[in-house]
Amino acid sequence: MTPTVASRPVRLVAHLMEHDAFSRWLGIEVLAAAEGLSRLRLTVRPDMVNGFGIAHGGVLFSLADSALAFCTNAAGTLSVALDCTISFPVAVQVGDVLTAEAIEESTTRRMGFCRVTVTNQHDVVVGHFRGTVYRTTRAHALPDDAPTADT
Amino acid sequence: MTPTVASRPVRLVAHLMEHDAFSRWLGIEVLAAAEGLSRLRLTVRPDMVNGFGIAHGGVLFSLADSALAFCTNAAGTLSVALDCTISFPVAVQVGDVLTAEAIEESTTRRMGFCRVTVTNQHDVVVGHFRGTVYRTTRAHALPDDAPTADT
Amino acid sequence: MTPTVASRPVRLVAHLMEHDAFSRWLGIEVLAAAEGLSRLRLTVRPDMVNGFGIAHGGVLFSLADSALAFCTNAAGTLSVALDCTISFPVAVQVGDVLTAEAIEESTTRRMGFCRVTVTNQHDVVVGHFRGTVYRTTRAHALPDDAPTADT
Amino acid sequence: MTPTVASRPVRLVAHLMEHDAFSRWLGIEVLAAAEGLSRLRLTVRPDMVNGFGIAHGGVLFSLADSALAFCTNAAGTLSVALDCTISFPVAVQVGDVLTAEAIEESTTRRMGFCRVTVTNQHDVVVGHFRGTVYRTTRAHALPDDAPTADT
Repeated sequence: MTPTVASRPVRLVAHLMEHDAFSRWLGIEVLAAAEGLSRLRLTVRPDMVNGFGIAHGGVLFSLADSALAFCTNAAGTLSVALDCTISFPVAVQVGDVLTAEAIEESTTRRMGFCRVTVTNQHDVVVGHFRGTVYRTTRAHALPDDAPTADT
Repeated sequence: MTPTVASRPVRLVAHLMEHDAFSRWLGIEVLAAAEGLSRLRLTVRPDMVNGFGIAHGGVLFSLADSALAFCTNAAGTLSVALDCTISFPVAVQVGDVLTAEAIEESTTRRMGFCRVTVTNQHDVVVGHFRGTVYRTTRAHALPDDAPTADT
Repeated sequence: MTPTVASRPVRLVAHLMEHDAFSRWLGIEVLAAAEGLSRLRLTVRPDMVNGFGIAHGGVLFSLADSALAFCTNAAGTLSVALDCTISFPVAVQVGDVLTAEAIEESTTRRMGFCRVTVTNQHDVVVGHFRGTVYRTTRAHALPDDAPTADT
Repeated sequence: MTPTVASRPVRLVAHLMEHDAFSRWLGIEVLAAAEGLSRLRLTVRPDMVNGFGIAHGGVLFSLADSALAFCTNAAGTLSVALDCTISFPVAVQVGDVLTAEAIEESTTRRMGFCRVTVTNQHDVVVGHFRGTVYRTTRAHALPDDAPTADT
C-alpha cells in the first residue's frame, strides 16, 4: 500500500512554516500551497491590536507577506521580497478570521510579481497587497529530498 | 517646585503605546514623539524570524507602521493608515537593533503623507516606507486631560 | 424608430475622454466602460520613448491612470487618484499595442480601491498597477442630462 | 586655453535627454544632474490636462520617473525602473511650474532605492514618489568617450 504523499510545494511550504517562528506566533494556518499560489488563515487575537483597539496593520501585512513568501518559494528556489504595498479598506477587529490568497501573476528571469487579497470571515476585502520578489537561483532543500548522485 | 511635564504629543503616544498590545509584544520603545514626527526602536528576537532564518518582513513593516501611527496621531486627532508601501534593501538578522524615524511630509484637510526610514545599528537603511493616512476629526482623549466646560 | 442609446457610464467616459487632452495626445481608445470597469488601448509611438529607446514608464502609467479615472468615475461622481503604484515586468517597444483593464475591487464611503493590468499584443503583462481614489460627493454633469426639476 | 567641460554625469544625462522623445515633448528641463541626484523642471501646458481640467497624474508621474532614470543612470551603468509609487496630495493646474528632485537613498549590488519629491512654484509638494530600480552591469556609452585600448 502506497502512503499518500503531499506534493513537493506542499512539503516545502510546511517546512518553511515549521521554521517561521513569527508566522507560528501569529497562528497562521496553511490552507493551500502550490507553485505560484498560497492561501493562509489567521484569527485576530487580543494581543494583535494597536493603540486604537483594532488589529495592527502589521498583522495584516505579515499575513500577506507570509502568503507572498510561500507562493513565490513553493516552486523550489529562494525568492525574497523587495517591494510591497498594502491598502487597508476597512478596520479589522479582534476575533475576525482573515484569509490571504496569493497569486504570482507574472515572472521574469529575476523577478516575480504577486497579488495578495486579504478577506475577513464575511468575504469583505480588508487588505489589497502587491509584492515584488527577487528570484535567486538558490534551491531549497528538504530533509526528505532524495540524495543526489554525488552524495 | 514645578514638576517636569511631558508635552501632550509625548503623553498621547505613551497612552497609545500602553494600549498597543502588538507594539508591546514587538518590544517597541518610543525614542521621540512630537507632532508629525516619531522615532521608535526594536531589537529583533529569535521569535521574529521567517522560514529563511532572517527577520520577517512583517516585523519591519510593523515597526514602521507604528511609527506612522504615532507620528500622525500625535497632533491629537485620529488618523488611520490607508495605503502603505515598503522596500527591503537588505536582510535583517536576529539581534539587529532597528530604528524607525517617521516624518509627516505634507498634510491636506483629509490626508497625511508620511515617510519612514528604518535603519539598523550600523546606520544601514533596511526599510524604505511611505504611508498615507486618512485624517478623521475625532479627538484623542487622555486620562489626565482637563475636564471640559460641560463635564 | 428608437436610436441606440449608450449607457450613462459609456457617455460619461466619452465626455471625460473628449476633455482629456493628454489621453487624446496619447491616442487612447476606450474599448469598454461601465461602473467599476474600464478597458483602454494605446499604440506606442516613436515620440513616447525614453532615453533608452523603449517606451517611457510614464506612458504606461498614464494609460493605467486614465483607466483608473474612467473606471472609478463612471458611476457618476467625482473620484480623484490619491496613491498609485506600478510595477514594470518587461520593457515595452515602439509599435506595441497596450491594453489596460481596470477593475474597482472594493469601495468604502470615501475610498475606492482599483486594480489595473496592462498587457501587450502578445497578452504579456507589461504593467501591474494599483490605485486608491478619494470619492467626493460631486456629481458629474453631462450636456445631454435631462434638466432637473428646479432648472 | 582649456574649455569648460561638464562632468560625465551631466553629459550623460544630457545625452539621455536628447534621445528621450517623451521627456522632450513634456518640455522637461534638466536643472541638476550628478551621481544619485537629479533635479528637473516642467511647466504644465493645456495639452497635459485630464478630463477634469487639471494636470493628468501621468504628467507628474512621468516627470518623477524621468528624474528617477537620470538620477540612477548618471553613475554610468544602465538602471531600469522596477516598482514605482506616487501619492498626489493636491491638484496641479495648467501653468504650474513643477520641480522634481530625485535622490538615490540607498543601493545594493543589484538594486537602487530612490525618493523623488515634486513641488510646485509655491514650494507645495504635489507628488511624493518612490522608485526601485534594477541595476544592470551595462555601461552607458557617450559619443565623446575616449576610445578604449582595443578600438
